[in-house]
Amino acid sequence: MAAVTTAQVLAFAPAKPAAKNVFTSLRAQRPAVRAPVKVQASAPAQANALKKESYIQEVPESLLRPGIDDSNSMRGRFEQMIRGIQRQVCAAIEEVDGNTFRQDAWTRPGGGGGITRVMQEGNVWEKAGVAVSVVYGTMPAEAYRVAVGKDIPFEKDDRVPFFAAGISSVMHPWNPHCPTMHFNYRYFETEDWKGIPGQWWFGGGTDITPNYVVEEDMKHFHGVYKAVCERHGYSYQKLKEDCDEYFTITHRGETRGLGGIIYEDLNDRDKEEIFKFATDAANHIVEAYVPIVKKHKNDPFSPRQKEWQQIRRGRYTEFNLVYDRGTIFGLKTGGRIESILMSLPLTASWRYDYQVDPQGPEQKFLDAVRNAKAQNWV
Amino acid sequence: MAAVTTAQVLAFAPAKPAAKNVFTSLRAQRPAVRAPVKVQASAPAQANALKKESYIQEVPESLLRPGIDDSNSMRGRFEQMIRGIQRQVCAAIEEVDGNTFRQDAWTRPGGGGGITRVMQEGNVWEKAGVAVSVVYGTMPAEAYRVAVGKDIPFEKDDRVPFFAAGISSVMHPWNPHCPTMHFNYRYFETEDWKGIPGQWWFGGGTDITPNYVVEEDMKHFHGVYKAVCERHGYSYQKLKEDCDEYFTITHRGETRGLGGIIYEDLNDRDKEEIFKFATDAANHIVEAYVPIVKKHKNDPFSPRQKEWQQIRRGRYTEFNLVYDRGTIFGLKTGGRIESILMSLPLTASWRYDYQVDPQGPEQKFLDAVRNAKAQNWV
Repeated sequence: MAAVTTAQVLAFAPAKPAAKNVFTSLRAQRPAVRAPVKVQASAPAQANALKKESYIQEVPESLLRPGIDDSNSMRGRFEQMIRGIQRQVCAAIEEVDGNTFRQDAWTRPGGGGGITRVMQEGNVWEKAGVAVSVVYGTMPAEAYRVAVGKDIPFEKDDRVPFFAAGISSVMHPWNPHCPTMHFNYRYFETEDWKGIPGQWWFGGGTDITPNYVVEEDMKHFHGVYKAVCERHGYSYQKLKEDCDEYFTITHRGETRGLGGIIYEDLNDRDKEEIFKFATDAANHIVEAYVPIVKKHKNDPFSPRQKEWQQIRRGRYTEFNLVYDRGTIFGLKTGGRIESILMSLPLTASWRYDYQVDPQGPEQKFLDAVRNAKAQNWV
Repeated sequence: MAAVTTAQVLAFAPAKPAAKNVFTSLRAQRPAVRAPVKVQASAPAQANALKKESYIQEVPESLLRPGIDDSNSMRGRFEQMIRGIQRQVCAAIEEVDGNTFRQDAWTRPGGGGGITRVMQEGNVWEKAGVAVSVVYGTMPAEAYRVAVGKDIPFEKDDRVPFFAAGISSVMHPWNPHCPTMHFNYRYFETEDWKGIPGQWWFGGGTDITPNYVVEEDMKHFHGVYKAVCERHGYSYQKLKEDCDEYFTITHRGETRGLGGIIYEDLNDRDKEEIFKFATDAANHIVEAYVPIVKKHKNDPFSPRQKEWQQIRRGRYTEFNLVYDRGTIFGLKTGGRIESILMSLPLTASWRYDYQVDPQGPEQKFLDAVRNAKAQNWV
């Protein structure tokens, strides 16, 4: 049942209405300079739009459907877990940065919603975002049949109800000696359909993208995740290699960064066990990442090092726009643009035929991202 | 025979070896700081690599196969036309900027090659590139069958020989009041195959991407191309609408810029007539674009206007990496990365939920790119 990822399923039944509707509803509550923007929603975005959402000031205790979903179910517990992670990570980042996150939150009439927190132009981070979403949707029966791997008879327009909850985040610091970090943790369910019991799976991971190789830092980051994997009997080596594989910028012959772990479509064990693993991994984001930023946030740097960071930011953008499945499907199916592209850096650069000193630390970094799979940090 | 574009065909039989090989051969001729970069060529890039190219100091009079191709054929004449355009455009840009283009040129043993000219961090342009290439390759028979629209019997691995020559260019100025401009002109031929005579078609266009709407400038730019179309009996209105259609950033519900003309797979007339049209269009790039830059290159601008330019540069990058067929297929099939991504801006920016003054000129620009097709400049 590993054939369809959450991102791919969400592509068929996207989480959020077209950005245009979001903007219109958002702007209506804001001062003049943020008045509604006149736009024509693109046809595909409109066709895929779900129920219109409303922006809210107070976020309810749960984004599940009231009176329908059990708050003690995995849906409810996963939602609470990722909302706790959002609070935990944002608090840790705010403490280091000294600035606070702005929050945009919304719900839909029938249940579901999202909480996006962004901090832009802070003291330490140029852009940091953490987004939680809870989605009720339907997926085409054909996609479902592929996912469950059974030859289920269905009508052409049949759609299968699903639920998805997830958290995703990218943090881009100012200082070129501080790494960018990304994580994503999600839980997915289909409902009982045509006599087939509901299906479920988990996906997630945390990965790091520095501009320079600092072995001690990589030993720390990967060490934290190796310990998490080992505590739960998962192979760190496999999840590390899957991560390098996923984050490959094929046309450059290099990875986006120096890896971490990733797992997709995980349902190989009891749901509770995988949930514990996901929770433990998410609970170690701060420990894996924040000490590295604290250590380097005041490191001196040269204009040439800042330029190199901007070149690497360009590569990050290339990966996200050309290869990242979640980003591409989100963009092409009418997801909320501001949440999807929250991941892009505040600034990036492309220089023609950029060359580095073959004896320098930039070359050492290139060697590392061009041989990511062969590189063992711990 | 309009089903397959040149870009798509080139995707099957890419123009150039993997960037890695290019770099290795390039570096070998340069000083220490530009020594060979150690890289592992990615598998798809290697699989698609054509004959290895060598960098050359002196560009031959023709990049065609000596003794095989007739220099008076359309192949030869198209090559000479685009090389003339490259000289003409670069000379006009250098005159305004005061800096010169750097040139990277190469040939392949069996014929074919390329001339890439780039000017980076000039006085007026932050990045300007003009690339010419002449390619001999083979395309899968299936793609050919689709292209010619006939049910030709073929074996699974049959490939059809083709020839392609083209020029492409992007210019990004520093001043936010100066527009970015892009053009591309190409000629494509297949050889006689299984009793079917060789096929041919032309493609091309010029389009402009300002950050602000200056109606007078748009009247000038579009006026030049309207006159070109009318001189040759082509519908400016159709080619203008096709251009708006092609350069749509679907997920934003807006076009990349304020259009121009585009024609794809053009073979509706005598080859000579279309060649004259292509030549005339290419010969009017300088007249259409350069006066606008001259007019605005010393315009004062605010930090907020520079920021807006950077946001638009981000949108430009989104279009090129997510939608542009030539870019995507080039990247995914092992084209020369530096030539393909020459089109990306030196700097770009993504701000979360960026808002403009609804009464300001940025909003006027957004209204224009969100209603490009309805907008008639001339």
